[in-house]
Amino acid sequence: MTLSNKDTNITWHEGAVTREERQALLKQKGVTVWMTGLSASGKSTIASILEQMLLHQGKAAYRLDGDNIRFGLNKDPKSLKEKSGYSDEAAKRFGIGFSAEDRGENIRRIGEVAKLFSDAGVIAVTSFISPYIKDRDAVRANNKPGEFIEVYINVSLATAEKRDPKGLYKKARAGEIKGFTGIDDPYEAPVNPEIVVDTENASPEEAAKQILAYLTDKGYLAA
Amino acid sequence: MTLSNKDTNITWHEGAVTREERQALLKQKGVTVWMTGLSASGKSTIASILEQMLLHQGKAAYRLDGDNIRFGLNKDPKSLKEKSGYSDEAAKRFGIGFSAEDRGENIRRIGEVAKLFSDAGVIAVTSFISPYIKDRDAVRANNKPGEFIEVYINVSLATAEKRDPKGLYKKARAGEIKGFTGIDDPYEAPVNPEIVVDTENASPEEAAKQILAYLTDKGYLAA
Repeated sequence: MTLSNKDTNITWHEGAVTREERQALLKQKGVTVWMTGLSASGKSTIASILEQMLLHQGKAAYRLDGDNIRFGLNKDPKSLKEKSGYSDEAAKRFGIGFSAEDRGENIRRIGEVAKLFSDAGVIAVTSFISPYIKDRDAVRANNKPGEFIEVYINVSLATAEKRDPKGLYKKARAGEIKGFTGIDDPYEAPVNPEIVVDTENASPEEAAKQILAYLTDKGYLAA
Repeated sequence: MTLSNKDTNITWHEGAVTREERQALLKQKGVTVWMTGLSASGKSTIASILEQMLLHQGKAAYRLDGDNIRFGLNKDPKSLKEKSGYSDEAAKRFGIGFSAEDRGENIRRIGEVAKLFSDAGVIAVTSFISPYIKDRDAVRANNKPGEFIEVYINVSLATAEKRDPKGLYKKARAGEIKGFTGIDDPYEAPVNPEIVVDTENASPEEAAKQILAYLTDKGYLAA
């Protein structure tokens, strides 16, 4: 059933709004821009600048990162218990820790949230190390072609370790952090990513511009 | 550190983009519009029409409902195993079923996702029965004042049961569905919701207009 709106001559329908409808009205295409790379590769900075560039063009964009995911949707068991009043059992069951299985579920949920943003017509920019090909490929497989763009933020371990803005590599080398990607846990570089950003040579702004150019050329910023 | 952009005189910053920045650039305020009400109260239809009305004003809006949540982020254990290749143990642990605990976690995650949309400057419209005051109040408490709007889609059980578009009440009365809200599981009406919609008398379009008027009056559709 459709409902006519006499005031504006717009007709409302009762069924679910489609992705195509949203995109036409927002004049942009939803997509997941999935950044992957070592700690200190520059993912967060590049994602933040890309988000600003998109917003300044009037395009809805949003960055998903550790700060807004790990403290909310993917809380650890302790936080679920203390902040959400969960029983020990429920907190342990639903909370996300740092085992391989937990990391996999963490990435799966992030992929699902990014997909919702993408379905909403928003450009979702994720900045997580996401070191395993298997987890990233599962997210890709959950999206239609063209709705998932893998961006490899490429940097050598030596450079990342030299930058080490949070001192994490130093702690990992000292054995104070276990399972740190690049030190005692592997980073699996993308085999065939849509975009490779070389942060050895490019500044964060240049990297963001490179991704923006891709989005523009491929038509994501138009209906 | 901020980066100046010589082309446009816009300055990019390296830190996280704030909610306020996004809202100013998108010319709207993010918010969670949380609909609650019995099955067949009209939540989904009203949410869909509200979403269309917002999109036609060029406002980013998105509806979260059972269809896009239960088949993605909040999959059941069986789907996690079959579609995501989870082990029995991981599927059981991370999957969402229908126990009271599972329903609570379902609503918590939906609340967190809506909060991300709201943070992104998008108007998130959720349409879930969400029968328990405790669960809804937990979502409210997780948001700042003004960033969560509870909309009670009020309908009598008699009317909802008479509509019964999917035959669910009939099945529940016949004992074919257990724990059905309104029949053998309680619905706890909101005590102090921001909006009450009377769907006994208002059409879905009139109900959507009522909510739209609230959003407009309270300044959500402007920067």
